[in-house]
Amino acid sequence: MKSLVVAGVMSGTSADGVDVAICRVSPALRAGGTPRIKLLGHLGLAYPKTLRAAVLGAMDAEAISVAELARLNWRLGELYAEAVARAQEKFGVTVQLVGCHGQTIYHQGASEKYLGRALRVTWQTGEAAVIAERLRVPVVSDFRPGDLAAGGQGAPLVPMLDYCMFRSAKVSRVLLNLGGIGNLTAIPAKADANGLMAFDTGPGNMVIDTCMKRLYEREFDRGGAVARTGTVLRDVVEKILEETYFSALPPKSCGREQFGETFVSRFVAMCRKAGGREGRDKDVVATATALTAASIAQAYRRFVLGHVGQAAPLSRVEFVVAGGGTKNACLMRMLGAELEPMGVKVRLIEELGVPAQAKEAIAFALLAWLSWSGLPGNVPAATGAPRAVVLGKITHG
Amino acid sequence: MKSLVVAGVMSGTSADGVDVAICRVSPALRAGGTPRIKLLGHLGLAYPKTLRAAVLGAMDAEAISVAELARLNWRLGELYAEAVARAQEKFGVTVQLVGCHGQTIYHQGASEKYLGRALRVTWQTGEAAVIAERLRVPVVSDFRPGDLAAGGQGAPLVPMLDYCMFRSAKVSRVLLNLGGIGNLTAIPAKADANGLMAFDTGPGNMVIDTCMKRLYEREFDRGGAVARTGTVLRDVVEKILEETYFSALPPKSCGREQFGETFVSRFVAMCRKAGGREGRDKDVVATATALTAASIAQAYRRFVLGHVGQAAPLSRVEFVVAGGGTKNACLMRMLGAELEPMGVKVRLIEELGVPAQAKEAIAFALLAWLSWSGLPGNVPAATGAPRAVVLGKITHG
Ligand SMILES: Nc1ncnc2c1ncn2[C@@H]1O[C@H](COP(=O)(O)OP(=O)(O)OP(=O)(O)O)[C@@H](O)[C@H]1O
Ligand SMILES: Nc1ncnc2c1ncn2[C@@H]1O[C@H](COP(=O)(O)OP(=O)(O)OP(=O)(O)O)[C@@H](O)[C@H]1O
Ligand SMILES: [Mg+2]
Ligand SMILES: [Mg+2]
Repeated sequence: MKSLVVAGVMSGTSADGVDVAICRVSPALRAGGTPRIKLLGHLGLAYPKTLRAAVLGAMDAEAISVAELARLNWRLGELYAEAVARAQEKFGVTVQLVGCHGQTIYHQGASEKYLGRALRVTWQTGEAAVIAERLRVPVVSDFRPGDLAAGGQGAPLVPMLDYCMFRSAKVSRVLLNLGGIGNLTAIPAKADANGLMAFDTGPGNMVIDTCMKRLYEREFDRGGAVARTGTVLRDVVEKILEETYFSALPPKSCGREQFGETFVSRFVAMCRKAGGREGRDKDVVATATALTAASIAQAYRRFVLGHVGQAAPLSRVEFVVAGGGTKNACLMRMLGAELEPMGVKVRLIEELGVPAQAKEAIAFALLAWLSWSGLPGNVPAATGAPRAVVLGKITHG
Repeated sequence: MKSLVVAGVMSGTSADGVDVAICRVSPALRAGGTPRIKLLGHLGLAYPKTLRAAVLGAMDAEAISVAELARLNWRLGELYAEAVARAQEKFGVTVQLVGCHGQTIYHQGASEKYLGRALRVTWQTGEAAVIAERLRVPVVSDFRPGDLAAGGQGAPLVPMLDYCMFRSAKVSRVLLNLGGIGNLTAIPAKADANGLMAFDTGPGNMVIDTCMKRLYEREFDRGGAVARTGTVLRDVVEKILEETYFSALPPKSCGREQFGETFVSRFVAMCRKAGGREGRDKDVVATATALTAASIAQAYRRFVLGHVGQAAPLSRVEFVVAGGGTKNACLMRMLGAELEPMGVKVRLIEELGVPAQAKEAIAFALLAWLSWSGLPGNVPAATGAPRAVVLGKITHG
């Protein structure tokens, strides 16, 4: 185990591009401690338009050619290698190890029968051999299958970073990532890794983005500008919060299956109905934003509060938000309005020294370092795996 | 570097099943030497019928769902794990490392443009994380992408085994594998790894099998029984041997693109025409068998003879044949009749202590051991890569 400069490479389910976080990861200072992570630089790159279309076309595709998928895997490998090379140049550092999450094109956390076996499966694409060859450093890739094969959900994997970076003896911290989905990790003050709780609260930006796409032909609601001008249809929010996903006990995870196109069709119809004849597009977006905030607050109230409340006074709970959704000022304001009455302090992850967009990429730098050092990377309390396992596949550089 | 019990797991392009070879692989005895390989046991298992259909359906598929591909990847991982477990039990040994080739579902050795990049790509499926989890040993998988990314063809990879196991100071050896395709490795006496030559001669069993499927609805010509009773249409053989693939200089590789359904349609039509109105089914199969033998002999005469002839007297050239095609007595007889007039001795690989069906699986046990030991596994003279690279991806057990 030694200190290494590691690049974490992440492409989330929004399929908007790639984040590279170059970090120094060093061994724990004492037995029982956790590795130390220092962010040296973060670079976000959008996918070229045609590549983004190819990625979206591959996700959950019903009928696609294996040639297309094989080429996409390779092409993403090239892009990831270039992204790391550019980050190296920009920050004037030389990476010694890469951790690449890849682009998820299929994830099935629930068991289904296939050719005589009950299987749960996951698939991240982006060829590690291409990255290793272009950069001539070892690459760790394919982090999720190991946890899934061991009996976990293969997700979430960020809690290991949350635990290493954000645990505290004094305050309980709730880490929220607002990507496509809202992912939450709760770390009670003084807890060890077994004491944390992690689950998906529901939509992060997914419902907002999908509404924006349909109603405004835009990728997202920049700054929350559309939501800000609309009127929230409270009845719709409350009705949807009664649905099964939101009341199911954690651990639980969700994705496009729950909150993708099918959900949004239903949601928009409900808004149109509730909003009267003139149910306006901006009201739909405002309601999607309010739903997102309210689902997070409700999850906190129902599932997290009791868990963290035992460890420290509730006045000592920090809610630390990361992910692209932090740039949606309207969403952030709504979230604050929902949570602050519960005595929770909402902070941006930047206040703790981490750029919101970089966090998941940092997580995969840490996970790569752990795998390379022969150490487990999953948190069983988060993924539901029966034990901690060394994640990923290592490609020599 | 230490001596390990390694299971090599191979599924060839025939997609008929899986071969497991359990080997002891030990470091070279002296610097500049090659690792030593001892076969402890070999087990061949046919794919269950539905799984075989799924594999064939995935190969080069034009329109398939990512869900199906994700599940197939996982299902094959389960099957490979079971196959190794059964082999362990049968031979009473405990495997310490697994090398799994996986099932090739796409291979594109020629560069094609895709989203702004000229790419060559390859894809082997069968999830290593599942194997590692079930057996709790490290698994090396995905051997081809590293060579391809480095600029090689990603194939053939068996020459490393040929070199380690069959090189000789006294005789030149030509190793021929009769799988779907005929793969040939020529090792001149006393040559080092840079001195060997490897390429695909053309069809192995592929044309024979496809004819049998079409004309007899059988998977292959057991023992060569059909070919034996037919008449070879010499003109057809000679005409086809003039075609480009056979005259192209090595290194070269081929597959279903060259000798799959499209080729066979043309071939059968030529036979029907040459055979007169009563051009019989068995004559087609006999001619396919003769074509296979003649293409190998012609490749030997044109490309190999000069290469090995310099190293040792031609009377000292051994032609060592492996693969499922060795069980086709008619093919083997035709091959002998073509080669022996050139002073070449045709031997079965069994005579050198290796079961014909086990050879490729043994190769992936060796390649896994090399990767695990941090040593390169490709032979640049065989794949065309500009340098030797450490192949594969390592999954912890
Ligand atoms: N300026 C902005 N204003 C509003 N929203 C924004 C802005 N920038 C980004 N976003 C939102 O953030 C999303 C991208 O967030 P992020 O990169 O964290 O998601 P992801 O990592 O792809 O998804 P996941 O974490 O679920 O896999 C965009 O789709 C958009 O909804
Ligand atoms: N008893 C037999 N008689 C005749 N041919 C046989 C017999 N048994 C196997 N074969 C042939 O051998 C083939 C399988 O050979 P093998 O397992 O070496 O190929 P593979 O490894 O799948 O292909 P490749 O090496 O090209 O990837 C069958 O498809 C069949 O043509
Ligand atoms: Mg994200
Ligand atoms: Mg074979």
